[in-house]
Amino acid sequence: MRGSFACGVAPLLLTLILAPAATTTFFSLPSPWGYRCDVGRCIKEDNTGVEDLVTLNTCKLTCGPFGVLWPQPKSATVGKEVVQFLPSNITHKTSCAPAVCELLEQAVVIFKDNLQRYHPDYAAGLTPWKGPWGPATVGHTLNLDVTVNTDATRLSLETDESYSLSVSTTGQTTTAIIITATYFGARHALETLSQLVEYQEYQDSLMIVSTAEVSDSPVFKYRGLILDTSRNFIGVEAIERTLDTMAANKLNSFHWHITDSHSFPLYLESLPKMSYYGAYSSRHVYYPADIRHLVEYGRVRGVRVLPEFDAPAHVGNGWQWTEKEEGLGKLAVCVNREPWQSYCVEPPCGQLNLANPNMYKLLGQIYDEMVQLFSPLDLFHYGGDEVNLNCWNTTAEIVAWMTENNNGLDADAYYVQWGTFQERARQLLTTANGEKEVTGILWTSHLTEAGHVDRFLNNSQYIIQIWTTGDDPVIGELLKKNYRVIFSTYDSWYLDCGMGAWVGEGNNWCSPYKGWQKVYDFSPYEIAINQTGADQRDLIMGGEAALWTEQVDDTAVDSKLWPRGAALAERLWTNPSANWKPAETRFIHNRQRLVKRGVMAERIQPEWCHQNEGLCYL
Amino acid sequence: MRGSFACGVAPLLLTLILAPAATTTFFSLPSPWGYRCDVGRCIKEDNTGVEDLVTLNTCKLTCGPFGVLWPQPKSATVGKEVVQFLPSNITHKTSCAPAVCELLEQAVVIFKDNLQRYHPDYAAGLTPWKGPWGPATVGHTLNLDVTVNTDATRLSLETDESYSLSVSTTGQTTTAIIITATYFGARHALETLSQLVEYQEYQDSLMIVSTAEVSDSPVFKYRGLILDTSRNFIGVEAIERTLDTMAANKLNSFHWHITDSHSFPLYLESLPKMSYYGAYSSRHVYYPADIRHLVEYGRVRGVRVLPEFDAPAHVGNGWQWTEKEEGLGKLAVCVNREPWQSYCVEPPCGQLNLANPNMYKLLGQIYDEMVQLFSPLDLFHYGGDEVNLNCWNTTAEIVAWMTENNNGLDADAYYVQWGTFQERARQLLTTANGEKEVTGILWTSHLTEAGHVDRFLNNSQYIIQIWTTGDDPVIGELLKKNYRVIFSTYDSWYLDCGMGAWVGEGNNWCSPYKGWQKVYDFSPYEIAINQTGADQRDLIMGGEAALWTEQVDDTAVDSKLWPRGAALAERLWTNPSANWKPAETRFIHNRQRLVKRGVMAERIQPEWCHQNEGLCYL
Repeated sequence: MRGSFACGVAPLLLTLILAPAATTTFFSLPSPWGYRCDVGRCIKEDNTGVEDLVTLNTCKLTCGPFGVLWPQPKSATVGKEVVQFLPSNITHKTSCAPAVCELLEQAVVIFKDNLQRYHPDYAAGLTPWKGPWGPATVGHTLNLDVTVNTDATRLSLETDESYSLSVSTTGQTTTAIIITATYFGARHALETLSQLVEYQEYQDSLMIVSTAEVSDSPVFKYRGLILDTSRNFIGVEAIERTLDTMAANKLNSFHWHITDSHSFPLYLESLPKMSYYGAYSSRHVYYPADIRHLVEYGRVRGVRVLPEFDAPAHVGNGWQWTEKEEGLGKLAVCVNREPWQSYCVEPPCGQLNLANPNMYKLLGQIYDEMVQLFSPLDLFHYGGDEVNLNCWNTTAEIVAWMTENNNGLDADAYYVQWGTFQERARQLLTTANGEKEVTGILWTSHLTEAGHVDRFLNNSQYIIQIWTTGDDPVIGELLKKNYRVIFSTYDSWYLDCGMGAWVGEGNNWCSPYKGWQKVYDFSPYEIAINQTGADQRDLIMGGEAALWTEQVDDTAVDSKLWPRGAALAERLWTNPSANWKPAETRFIHNRQRLVKRGVMAERIQPEWCHQNEGLCYL
Repeated sequence: MRGSFACGVAPLLLTLILAPAATTTFFSLPSPWGYRCDVGRCIKEDNTGVEDLVTLNTCKLTCGPFGVLWPQPKSATVGKEVVQFLPSNITHKTSCAPAVCELLEQAVVIFKDNLQRYHPDYAAGLTPWKGPWGPATVGHTLNLDVTVNTDATRLSLETDESYSLSVSTTGQTTTAIIITATYFGARHALETLSQLVEYQEYQDSLMIVSTAEVSDSPVFKYRGLILDTSRNFIGVEAIERTLDTMAANKLNSFHWHITDSHSFPLYLESLPKMSYYGAYSSRHVYYPADIRHLVEYGRVRGVRVLPEFDAPAHVGNGWQWTEKEEGLGKLAVCVNREPWQSYCVEPPCGQLNLANPNMYKLLGQIYDEMVQLFSPLDLFHYGGDEVNLNCWNTTAEIVAWMTENNNGLDADAYYVQWGTFQERARQLLTTANGEKEVTGILWTSHLTEAGHVDRFLNNSQYIIQIWTTGDDPVIGELLKKNYRVIFSTYDSWYLDCGMGAWVGEGNNWCSPYKGWQKVYDFSPYEIAINQTGADQRDLIMGGEAALWTEQVDDTAVDSKLWPRGAALAERLWTNPSANWKPAETRFIHNRQRLVKRGVMAERIQPEWCHQNEGLCYL
């Protein structure tokens, strides 16, 4: 060892750690860095001999106009001071209808758990709060006072999700007054309140801004994520995490694309062989208890769980049993048929057999059970995308049936049958729902194109989900015909794009990868204005980001969904006029918070950028 | 509920599950699907009334010429029959030098744990084997007989990693005879043996091919992964998983890019303030015990842990303390200097201060401790990339020093000083290593360009790591001058490419994402032949895939590294003449195996493709 530099430093404490001999226990020292808020930016400075610097968390909570709130509220004033408290010192009182109060109790439990998770050593529900704390911290109480004025306990497109939140501190008490029309607003308010809190490193405590006024409501009523659980199975725990993280970002619609041609993981009591033949294995099945659990799990978190049974295309594996055993005949055709390119858009192929009336009986049973499992429904997604006419038109049984019934064999003949199918499906679903009409959602497809949509789809019965591109003229056509729409265009809001190819080589079909900036900046109103001259706010229900899972399962579902799902969430909640740049710092902190909540959200930047705001620019 | 289709089926058992009432306990039934091996392909068939179909795992183990072995051995004959056994019935005997035997005991423990992980319900070291088993399964024993002929216990570029593995079964005993020159070959053999085993779903047991002959050795001696732990901190557990998974794929070099300008997470006992000022927080530090643990963890798994201390560029945060406290003066210049574009390739900037002699003292101390922590070294990586002359040439202290010493101020003047720095660094490292020379590795840079490399870098002292592109002429230049090289060209082997941008918007600098096919197909020998007319096998040490972590931390490090790291592994172990296509089925099964071993490897395809070999094509 050459002449080594023992680093003498002013505070005696530091010299203890300079002994070259290995120290077995390590002193935890205050960081040599502190932060100063400078015009909405937290600036990192050396705090040796400097008194008025604060920790990074303290600065983040109080520096910007919206602190670290995400999505950005409609209006908010966030105080510049914080007070310390312990998560054990929280009281709450509620004024609400019984059923709402019962939900609120659960929301408060979630709120308290979210606060525990701010501690860096939180693990499996336990947090080792050690202190030492001063009397002020120990004695400080956070009181929640929640008033909900209606008894709504189910989310619908008409639900008032607005809330007002007022935080004030007097002496050793901080009071948070929440007043909302519905439970769903209250739940959002508790989420916002939890974002006015952070971990205070040096007191091993929590801290909350001492004052805040928030008045908030969403711009779009439908704010969702699509998760495909057929291409690859996604476990119940991963879906729970997805619902938790949607709630953290005030997204309110989990669109469950539960089946497809690849697998049929849904166990149906009256049709057990659908999953027996169609699930990837006995461990890749959603049983009724799982579904009911997730629907309720979502409801408490303000997230509707919307089932999609995609048809008449995107069916296949799981339908093979009918032909063999029951004399039901083939209810799905082109199943796993080769060469797949001739019969569908990706392997394996499969479409319902329009020629076999038993198909409608089985479809009715499927709808019966899905309505029970996901009830009560406020929406139902019929799928309806990527029908391949060649599949039908090269299936002998269907060609014979079309011929016998003089339907013709040209494309329009099949559109007519497809339209007929859709109307029968709608009737079967309505029957399954006790003759109570349910608004249906359909993907854009040939059926929603100009010249077809008016003939087959009534704009009071269907919302059209646009999955093509932001410049697809079908958007303007649909809006001008007064169709309500949901945006999930793949050129901005498909989260599976950009990986390697899974058929052939190179990169997958919708590459490149959509960065959070692109997700954030896509504005449905701007598209509507471009194509129709008006923002069509009454027709645009909202939007969804989609995670198709050809190349995703439990190992990376979190990092694919988040934090880019949060970028979607601010677009749909706040619909900011600015682009991503002013939101970047808040977005990065929100990602950190999501990781603390147990979500394996992807890293967007080096930690250095989080600690040196504004210095990672181009 | 309309007239429902109760599905009567032949086997009585099935009717029990058809009752429409919800069943609380579910019967586990054999899958209705089975597999038949047809010319190296596992074909899925309905097994109703068919006797000779086998499970997917059984077919995969025995169908293709190399079963599910990865990387593909040099030569192997894999039997077509399997026998069942339980992981509790494994015995082993070894013939080896004491130090080797001690390592072998650990390797056998790892081998047994890998077998336990085949069970789908393995969790936290425990596996609920339930059976019921027949007497044959209960009575069957797997005997390991391992002979290691030398006493080598440290990996070097000369290590003989070859092995022979012979599996035979007589009655109720399967014997695996392993004969190798070194422990490292034996450990590889045990890994291959574990890949001749799989989970037998219907017996809730393990199964092993009853016979196999494998004779194997790697084509390239240096087979590595780079992990950057400065841009974002990667936890010790994630690094352990990385070493485990490298071992599973017979990669042998974990290149630890431990510091950079962003953070200095390495705790040094003689220089504690480097991490005190440079780590992101007190929780983002590698203490000596962590380092020594990981070095030993790698050694047992046949993976050398190669330290890189990148200099003279890529230094910065962590060096700020010297100027203030000790009168050492500034040892790093341009630290966090703005606008960063003028002084480095990405924020934040920072380079060592050539003008301050104290810099070499501190560098010597750093090397002293790194040599102790990572000893014994067989290689040391000096970094040496992306030096920005403008940073030096706009630092008054350096300009004055250059002027005083009549060094000149043009580019060449600075190359001379950079060369001088590198030689002094090499001497400091040699001294730190007890005057025992260590082969150094340097990144390609201006210093390794034609016209510079001969002047400054002796080809017997340095291996050059090529990070640019596969068509960079510097490759041919270096090979023709007899420099040994390691390939890690970013256009095939950078695993961080393809995400969103982290400065500005769009996609990051080295997009698009490199799919596993591209990683697999890149052949260093082909590049050498293109540029020099010969494959230069004596000069090409091997290659590395790189994971720079500007946009990665613990939440997605696994899915970024794997299974694409496995594609690299077969290229470097087997160097196959064919492209990725014939390897696809084996590659996908290897990914499934890695996930069973607890690695959150990315999903490459729908599970349907894994269960329907060859049908996901373009």
